[in-house]
Amino acid sequence: MSENENHERSTVSVLGLGQMGTRLAQAFLVAGHATTVWNRSAAKADALVAQGAVRAATVEEAVAASPLVVVCLPDYPTVSDLLEPVAKRLPGRALVNLTSGTPEDAVRSADWAAGHGADYLDGAAMSGTRLVGRPEALFVFSGSPKAFATHRVVLASLGNSVHLGADPALAPVYDTALFGLAWGALAGFYHAVALVGTAGVAPAAFAAVATGHMPFVTSLMAGHARQIEGGRFPDDDGTVEVHAAAMEHLLDTSRARGIGTDVPELIGNLLDRAATTGHGSSGIASVIETITKGERNA
Amino acid sequence: MSENENHERSTVSVLGLGQMGTRLAQAFLVAGHATTVWNRSAAKADALVAQGAVRAATVEEAVAASPLVVVCLPDYPTVSDLLEPVAKRLPGRALVNLTSGTPEDAVRSADWAAGHGADYLDGAAMSGTRLVGRPEALFVFSGSPKAFATHRVVLASLGNSVHLGADPALAPVYDTALFGLAWGALAGFYHAVALVGTAGVAPAAFAAVATGHMPFVTSLMAGHARQIEGGRFPDDDGTVEVHAAAMEHLLDTSRARGIGTDVPELIGNLLDRAATTGHGSSGIASVIETITKGERNA
Repeated sequence: MSENENHERSTVSVLGLGQMGTRLAQAFLVAGHATTVWNRSAAKADALVAQGAVRAATVEEAVAASPLVVVCLPDYPTVSDLLEPVAKRLPGRALVNLTSGTPEDAVRSADWAAGHGADYLDGAAMSGTRLVGRPEALFVFSGSPKAFATHRVVLASLGNSVHLGADPALAPVYDTALFGLAWGALAGFYHAVALVGTAGVAPAAFAAVATGHMPFVTSLMAGHARQIEGGRFPDDDGTVEVHAAAMEHLLDTSRARGIGTDVPELIGNLLDRAATTGHGSSGIASVIETITKGERNA
Repeated sequence: MSENENHERSTVSVLGLGQMGTRLAQAFLVAGHATTVWNRSAAKADALVAQGAVRAATVEEAVAASPLVVVCLPDYPTVSDLLEPVAKRLPGRALVNLTSGTPEDAVRSADWAAGHGADYLDGAAMSGTRLVGRPEALFVFSGSPKAFATHRVVLASLGNSVHLGADPALAPVYDTALFGLAWGALAGFYHAVALVGTAGVAPAAFAAVATGHMPFVTSLMAGHARQIEGGRFPDDDGTVEVHAAAMEHLLDTSRARGIGTDVPELIGNLLDRAATTGHGSSGIASVIETITKGERNA
């Protein structure tokens, strides 16, 4: 590496050009940020170079090229294997790790980066690859507030980039939690599509109405979060008992129409457990206690 | 009943002034529609009368007062008991029934109304009582297209009033299906709140991020509905296998942190069944088949 290459020549470097890494680099380029890219198989950078990216010949060259280094690799061991040999290039840079991993991985990486003089952010892309670069693509980051503040504009070119807090574990925790939230909604949606299908309703016709209903459902979440925080569950949205009866009706209807019953069974169980533990006439957000307390088969 | 009382004197009559019926009448009044109200215990009408409603002394008077008769009563037998004796007043009117019931109830009521010369709409309020009268309050109606077209403006004063089709069973089917959808999302939300709580994240802080993520989740539903309709499941949003592995991670994390595991177990089961039936490398919307086919414990 020549001395010249040690000078920063771009705003951001992206290491790892899989499907997500490629979209990250494209979003940076589209937003007008000078972008250096590196991938083990260099050919993956060709299209990006055609779009204006600078190809780095080595990991070291890529790290040295920018004050902001974004890595998106298959796993954390790969991140360590690549960065450990070039750690001397890290001091003063911000390392942003969008590799999927656990909270423990994130904390270890943050400690390692701090030990080498780098500011560290762990991150997660919550909206798949297709929306990267659009304002509705949620990216969560956690770790160094300084790194986020310094590179806020560049990171915002990825989408709705949110800093969750200084604890690097937060991004992977949110990642996992938001994944479960999305799947709860999707499981409910698939069950609903199956149910209306028994009445001859086409999926897209139902989806048109259902998606119009989701902003209301979403608005319940903010209200229920406040109730959970306060530990009081008014019955403004109905009581656990009333919802349990309606869920029993959904279960009966599903069974009678010959579709799977897993979804109403699960929710019926949560409601029944809440009722059993004294929340029958409480608001439905009290169901949270059957989860936080881990009271399975209570 | 004097001959004079047989003349219509208002735009809409509301029978049944429980929590929902009262909100319906208020929404009609706020929108400027002349409204007649009736309730078995007449005192429940006092506040509405103070807001400009006309009190009907009898069910017959209430029915005769308006071309549009909205009933919201505890159950369908109560509807029959009240309307059967005054059926001679029904010809030419539109009867809109927002009483909670089954698709079979709706079909029977529609047949009965048709036999007495009334146009019938079955309906369901999907957004609770608090939002009635606001544009985000979803009301679904099914049955007579003529009745919906004629009274569209009045019904629109309740909120986002949607006509689902001529089959009166559709409104209760959607009611039940949308209830399940909402609960899928809420169960996912409660699980997520419990999970991030183990990392010290406050429910409201999480909700702020989660509600910002829901429009993306909602957008998946429209796309997946089209896939389900076409019977083809591209992996744009990831494969069943990849999601199953991530769900296993959510399950492990939930167990390790001592919270309930019902939600990730349910979804993991759906994904595993989809994989077992040959959809491992399909897109996640293929999970619908594990529900439509009712393949429990497959």
